[in-house]
Amino acid sequence: MPKIIVEIMPKQDLLDPQGKAVANSLHRSGREDISAVRIGKRIELHFDREITDKDLEEAKTQAANFLSNDVIEDVVAVTKED
Amino acid sequence: MPKIIVEIMPKQDLLDPQGKAVANSLHRSGREDISAVRIGKRIELHFDREITDKDLEEAKTQAANFLSNDVIEDVVAVTKED
Repeated sequence: MPKIIVEIMPKQDLLDPQGKAVANSLHRSGREDISAVRIGKRIELHFDREITDKDLEEAKTQAANFLSNDVIEDVVAVTKED
Repeated sequence: MPKIIVEIMPKQDLLDPQGKAVANSLHRSGREDISAVRIGKRIELHFDREITDKDLEEAKTQAANFLSNDVIEDVVAVTKED
């Protein structure tokens, strides 16, 4: 199924308590070499038809304006997958 | 910074109420051509050093056993990014 994948992460300079908790837990289980963990969102937009370049452009706008909160989040990627 | 990206999505046959809410909202704003929306997680594991193939193998195990809940989620990708 054709889909557009939108990847959103918390901004670098913001605390990410959920990621911090996962990092601590990984450290306790012996993975001290993982220096940090950040947890973001992966949003799939499904289409019943072929995805056009226009769809991708619109998805980028929606990712920035609607799917993410630009005060605390960055859109790191908007990609097409067939 | 070298990192391993773990992508996790709710299983296909499970309801995803958050995704459904976003889909409804997109439909209301005129994007009826998006047939469905699914919302999953994008987890970054950061390293202060080069990532080895062994790190990637271990990350795959951790993604399956610890970072995801295999009753309700699928690990869709574990990739390296430099």
